[in-house]
Amino acid sequence: MDISPLTLNRLSVYLRCLRRLHEQEVAYVSSQQLALQFHLSAAQIRKDLTQFGEFGTRGVGYRVAPLLDRLTEVLGLDQKHALAVVGMGSLGSAFARHIGGTPDGPFAVAAGLDSDPQKIGKQIGGILVEPVSELSQLVPERDIKMGILAVPAAVAQETYDLLVAAGIRSILNFAPTRLEKAPEVHSRNVDLRIYLEELAYYLALSPALPA
Amino acid sequence: MDISPLTLNRLSVYLRCLRRLHEQEVAYVSSQQLALQFHLSAAQIRKDLTQFGEFGTRGVGYRVAPLLDRLTEVLGLDQKHALAVVGMGSLGSAFARHIGGTPDGPFAVAAGLDSDPQKIGKQIGGILVEPVSELSQLVPERDIKMGILAVPAAVAQETYDLLVAAGIRSILNFAPTRLEKAPEVHSRNVDLRIYLEELAYYLALSPALPA
Repeated sequence: MDISPLTLNRLSVYLRCLRRLHEQEVAYVSSQQLALQFHLSAAQIRKDLTQFGEFGTRGVGYRVAPLLDRLTEVLGLDQKHALAVVGMGSLGSAFARHIGGTPDGPFAVAAGLDSDPQKIGKQIGGILVEPVSELSQLVPERDIKMGILAVPAAVAQETYDLLVAAGIRSILNFAPTRLEKAPEVHSRNVDLRIYLEELAYYLALSPALPA
Repeated sequence: MDISPLTLNRLSVYLRCLRRLHEQEVAYVSSQQLALQFHLSAAQIRKDLTQFGEFGTRGVGYRVAPLLDRLTEVLGLDQKHALAVVGMGSLGSAFARHIGGTPDGPFAVAAGLDSDPQKIGKQIGGILVEPVSELSQLVPERDIKMGILAVPAAVAQETYDLLVAAGIRSILNFAPTRLEKAPEVHSRNVDLRIYLEELAYYLALSPALPA
């Protein structure tokens, strides 16, 4: 099943809504209720969810538990994913801590890597920092498939290439630079500075507050 | 001048490219050179940049320094922006450190706030943690216009409302939840879990590697 990135993001949102309803022991939910409660469009929800089988009954709504299971499976979140965080600076280590803080989630930090001898061998956010040079050995050993790239822009491309060469197949890049990407790897850039710059721009546009 | 969010993100990217060229003391650059060096489209670059005046000469290219100045100004980055980081957990404090690490940039963390008595009064990432309850006082005092929301999902809405009430006009939300947003405030959600879930999905799709 091939899903567009936009639909995928909406599925992630639905999943989160369904989890919350399931925790509240809600058994059925209509697209209208989902729409109202989570500020989404009921028509869009119905369109997205019909792809995954028959979980809804007219007048009753969707069965929360089976739909939750199905979406979890579609998104590959019924499995545990071992991640490598490369670059254990402030952002990388925050991300590692963030994931480490939800140990029952589908993601686990299997390695935290850095090239700084000052950091190697230390525990940062509960993770032992290991040398980047061991990447090609650690990736198959620990069955790591996903990588978080949080290194400075200047070394991002070479580190990306190392991740790809080591066999990592899905990469989230926080380095503020454009990468020459390997076609066989799903890569996604998240540039936090762009978000900040966007905020600054809209701030410049926004009218002054009344005094 | 009203610019679409997509154009805005490209301008951020051009700005970064121009900065690097300027540091390398490059005086002129053509759209083709920009395109090649940064993996962008030359036609798109020309289309985007014509909006800002005449910085290019056919056969010679764009003058790097004045174009850099103009884009910096358009994006509101010629001014210093005081930020409040609300929620000094792992993500909030990483963000604060990240911004604090580039003191010559246009952003400055003017306040780091939390509701946890264990954190209040401590220095985290070089920033004194102050109580969220003082937000309405600190925002006008320190001329804070932008907020980073990095609190747990359960308290995100009430904290967002506090930021808006305190007079903050541009908010970046990292809490993994949909917010009821104030129309007069530019708000942007960044849900890092959605990126991870996207990676997991594409990983589930990708073919197994040859042995």
